[in-house]
Amino acid sequence: MSDKAPWITFRPELKVLDCTIRDGGLVNAHQFSDAFVAAVYRACLDAGLDYMEIGYKNSERVFPKAKFGPWRHCDEADVQRLFGGHDPEATGLKLAAMADAGKSDWETALVSSHESPLSMIRVAFYAHQVSEAVDMIRHAAELGYETTANLMAVSNITEEEIDTVLEAIADTPASTMVIVDSFGHLYREQIDRLYRHYSAALAGTGKEIGIHAHNNLQLAFANTIEAIILGCNRVDSTMFGFGRGAGNCHTELLLGFLRNPKFDVRPVVEVIQNHLLPLRKELDWGPSIPYNITGQLNQHPRSAIEWREGSTPDDFIGFYDKVVAEI
Amino acid sequence: MSDKAPWITFRPELKVLDCTIRDGGLVNAHQFSDAFVAAVYRACLDAGLDYMEIGYKNSERVFPKAKFGPWRHCDEADVQRLFGGHDPEATGLKLAAMADAGKSDWETALVSSHESPLSMIRVAFYAHQVSEAVDMIRHAAELGYETTANLMAVSNITEEEIDTVLEAIADTPASTMVIVDSFGHLYREQIDRLYRHYSAALAGTGKEIGIHAHNNLQLAFANTIEAIILGCNRVDSTMFGFGRGAGNCHTELLLGFLRNPKFDVRPVVEVIQNHLLPLRKELDWGPSIPYNITGQLNQHPRSAIEWREGSTPDDFIGFYDKVVAEI
Repeated sequence: MSDKAPWITFRPELKVLDCTIRDGGLVNAHQFSDAFVAAVYRACLDAGLDYMEIGYKNSERVFPKAKFGPWRHCDEADVQRLFGGHDPEATGLKLAAMADAGKSDWETALVSSHESPLSMIRVAFYAHQVSEAVDMIRHAAELGYETTANLMAVSNITEEEIDTVLEAIADTPASTMVIVDSFGHLYREQIDRLYRHYSAALAGTGKEIGIHAHNNLQLAFANTIEAIILGCNRVDSTMFGFGRGAGNCHTELLLGFLRNPKFDVRPVVEVIQNHLLPLRKELDWGPSIPYNITGQLNQHPRSAIEWREGSTPDDFIGFYDKVVAEI
Repeated sequence: MSDKAPWITFRPELKVLDCTIRDGGLVNAHQFSDAFVAAVYRACLDAGLDYMEIGYKNSERVFPKAKFGPWRHCDEADVQRLFGGHDPEATGLKLAAMADAGKSDWETALVSSHESPLSMIRVAFYAHQVSEAVDMIRHAAELGYETTANLMAVSNITEEEIDTVLEAIADTPASTMVIVDSFGHLYREQIDRLYRHYSAALAGTGKEIGIHAHNNLQLAFANTIEAIILGCNRVDSTMFGFGRGAGNCHTELLLGFLRNPKFDVRPVVEVIQNHLLPLRKELDWGPSIPYNITGQLNQHPRSAIEWREGSTPDDFIGFYDKVVAEI
């Protein structure tokens, strides 16, 4: 990259993936109306985004349909119902779904990519699940999908574990290895080290490095920028930061930062005003003291989510004292 | 600094200044109850902070007392009333007030530092006011105060202007030159350049470099961390980010990041829960789409504040279209 005011220009190879529906669905068990999903899809198209992640391709055995909405499973019938006419070539937007190792019937749930509006399967896994993840990536790639490897909770494992995962993924058809800060714990010097680590381990494989940041410490956008500065070309974000717990890097902030003229932030502002702002009055997400605390402690946001959903969501001191006592 | 996991250790020389009352008062014309100010003071003491900025030392001619509360003026009688018994040596906390060039009766309003609970006068100025700022700094220093030079809106002036200001300030008794991102526009590569610029211009003067960030783009904490990484030892923050427009770097996030064991985040969490959360239900501050937009455009947040205070605060598209039309 040029050292001269790099913020004036742009890298055409940088692709934005909006995961509003997928990550936001973790807040409400993917109980979205079709109209909501269609509005986000429209915004992705109009904003010039590169990928839209429409949900999880996870199992109804783990996530019963009585409790979870269709975008937790992304059954082909549902995908066809909403996205049947989607044309990735004509629109420049590719559709993606995420499959969780250990929670997906990936052996049977995936159809050939030629029969599906989906272009990409992102495989999410914890370090100990890497063997299944490799199988999932190979299987999805054989069916014609672009694939990514999303090693979750990277702030919570050793460098040795990361090395082993990177070695296993290097040998797969995954196009991208994503740095996933599930706990929203990392700050920029740690992002730097992880990026260099990922980058060195994957050198020569042609794989891109991605970034998926959470906003527990109000660092999701900053860490995303940092990864971009270092060379990440695959970037996750959600509209209005909608996502589990403290939420994500905001798509509208990201588009305001990127200088590729193909992006237009206005459709995102529109869907925020008309769909996400009303939703924000019903659902809780975004940085708040409990998420700050779990982020700082490098903990899963689970306890903070439970606290925010409980009877005393604003008893920050109560949460602080509870967590400190448990350390 | 060590290259080995610098986030494990700390720099004892790094000082935190909490400006909750001073910057937060811009949201409500400093109409605070004494109880509120006393609670923030208590939290500063208990949290182990180094400085508390209690308000502005500005003129009642510019800010009439009928409209503005006492901490816009910091008359000595008010300062004595609330902080008369304050002992900076025994508590480790120094009290500061800010004086704005062009808006302060600094020639007559300041008493000798030995007669005041205040230890520090921070001089805020725009580039074109640097001559008055130099006079203000010299005058306050002669009266025994520690002084700082806070060049505002640095994202909006040329490098030549910055150079001229730095040259003028280098020759004053100011202990600190603060990088002030009034518009919340900067991101980390720009912070880097400014820091190097300030640092080179002030080399050999013994002056510290400070950082005062705004949160329009959710980058206040990240940019503060960045400045710290580079070597800033004077850091501004406010509790719960309370401050004009999009607000500031959050004190509770900052203390969670710093590793100096003298800091304790719990008293800050307590004052947030008991005083700032209730206030947040009455007053608007913190990142939202209008502030995102002015931050991205490197504009003063004035228009966004007016929009948020108007009849359609959540008409983000209306604000976007208005601003874009005016560019």
